[in-house]
Amino acid sequence: MNNTQQTPLNTGVFGLGSMGSGMAASLLRGGLKVHGFDPHAPAVGAFVRSGGLSGDVQSAVENLDIVVLVVVNAQQTESVLFGEAGIVQWLSPGATVMSCATVPPDFARTMAARCNEVGVNYLDSPISGGSVKAASGELTVMASGTPAAFAGAAPALDAMAAKVFALGDEPGAGSAMKVVNQLLAGVHIAAAAEAITFGISQGIDATQCVEVISQCAGTSWMFENRGPHIAAGDYTPHSSVEIFVKDLGIVSDIARQSRFAAPIAATALQQFIAASGMGHGLEDDSAVAKVYAKQAGVKLPGDVAEE
Amino acid sequence: MNNTQQTPLNTGVFGLGSMGSGMAASLLRGGLKVHGFDPHAPAVGAFVRSGGLSGDVQSAVENLDIVVLVVVNAQQTESVLFGEAGIVQWLSPGATVMSCATVPPDFARTMAARCNEVGVNYLDSPISGGSVKAASGELTVMASGTPAAFAGAAPALDAMAAKVFALGDEPGAGSAMKVVNQLLAGVHIAAAAEAITFGISQGIDATQCVEVISQCAGTSWMFENRGPHIAAGDYTPHSSVEIFVKDLGIVSDIARQSRFAAPIAATALQQFIAASGMGHGLEDDSAVAKVYAKQAGVKLPGDVAEE
Repeated sequence: MNNTQQTPLNTGVFGLGSMGSGMAASLLRGGLKVHGFDPHAPAVGAFVRSGGLSGDVQSAVENLDIVVLVVVNAQQTESVLFGEAGIVQWLSPGATVMSCATVPPDFARTMAARCNEVGVNYLDSPISGGSVKAASGELTVMASGTPAAFAGAAPALDAMAAKVFALGDEPGAGSAMKVVNQLLAGVHIAAAAEAITFGISQGIDATQCVEVISQCAGTSWMFENRGPHIAAGDYTPHSSVEIFVKDLGIVSDIARQSRFAAPIAATALQQFIAASGMGHGLEDDSAVAKVYAKQAGVKLPGDVAEE
Repeated sequence: MNNTQQTPLNTGVFGLGSMGSGMAASLLRGGLKVHGFDPHAPAVGAFVRSGGLSGDVQSAVENLDIVVLVVVNAQQTESVLFGEAGIVQWLSPGATVMSCATVPPDFARTMAARCNEVGVNYLDSPISGGSVKAASGELTVMASGTPAAFAGAAPALDAMAAKVFALGDEPGAGSAMKVVNQLLAGVHIAAAAEAITFGISQGIDATQCVEVISQCAGTSWMFENRGPHIAAGDYTPHSSVEIFVKDLGIVSDIARQSRFAAPIAATALQQFIAASGMGHGLEDDSAVAKVYAKQAGVKLPGDVAEE
């Protein structure tokens, strides 16, 4: 808000997908100088037309104060930072990397250590809130890292986030909290699908089910958000089935490594895998309801009558 | 509110447990004449001391306008209505039975048909809200039945409920909705326990976990209600592990009969069964967290340090 320095901070957004493009727009609106990079050329083109910068990666990176990394997973995160054309080699000491993908906490700690070795700050900063809040600059960020990392990322956080949970100075804590959140989010979506489809099998109208349960102790944020998709038979992807194959997969991997038995998350993961296997991977995550309906011979709202 | 008839309606509450005693008190406060029955003599004594009536079942039942049945399950419901000393034989035609236990929808339909045969109305009316709301007359009721059943039960509903969902004129719909709610409630409690304990295994403080996730998309009504019990290490029973062994058992039975695969509910049920098997059946349902902690070698808040 009171960012009155002469030269606007140089920010680079890596990954201009549904989250990254909105975050880049929020950074531009916040008065920062924003460079955007993505292997998908049309995404870069759209960003440049909206006032962003792009061009040669190395020369841009050498002048960046803040890197906002909004890629899909740990593998892409490592590749952008330390791959063949990894950017950390070109970053100036004192620059700050904000890593926003959902990744294992141990991975976040490793990335932070490798960045710190060359004087680069690393903020473990997974995000929550979806593409709409990314575009409006109202994300929730679960962040942990050194005071220098928080200070370095502050102007970008101000521009992109409505709420920043500061979870201590150890990288990994932010990612751990995000993983816990995704465990619950994935389980609650699959449970909502299980419950609504089960209700249909018992003669309950899906719309009435969503209306009543939303006011009872059985409700969840995801039930209220995704339930209406099932009731309307509208599987336009807001967040896709594949996202939860990935995120509950991360939960499952970490839990296995930690010798933590997480049977409910494991079961929910199987349902998303089945939804993807049935060809619904790119539909809205609420399409996991189709697994239940198919297995029970139940019709969902929007199903075409078959005679 | 505007119940101005000369003679107060005669109501009988069968089952004076944590829910029934509160509901009986709410009926008394609502100006009805209330008879209370329970095999547990001290419960009846306490009710009589608070202004209620009891005594010979048959002579009381012959004059009842409304029966409120708040027993534990289908078996007890059938026993009170049609067992050896079943009350339906003594009820006057036109009397209304409100059946409040969580039971299979088919069972509710059978009970309604048997009551209707002898001119007795039956309102399929499971309740939600817990003992505090039972005592304050602010329950949620998921009700279905004939217009005559709704009309007959109205004075009791007015006295006991803050919200009545009228789910149509077919008995069974109320029970079906309640069963869907219990599926979600049970899954969400077990998922909250799984997530918080998993978080602890990743170094997250349980109190911070509850605080952060409550404001994120991973939250649920049960997470916000039961999470603090786990964070405080306080397993004083509000609703016990055994209640969810029972209620998810009903879900499981109905789902199996309907050939509806409900793997998440089935998995959550196993966790409550394990909690009970470990000796925690009469503790708060959030004690399902102890199953996760034991299996992962993780300490929960309140655990005594072992060296």
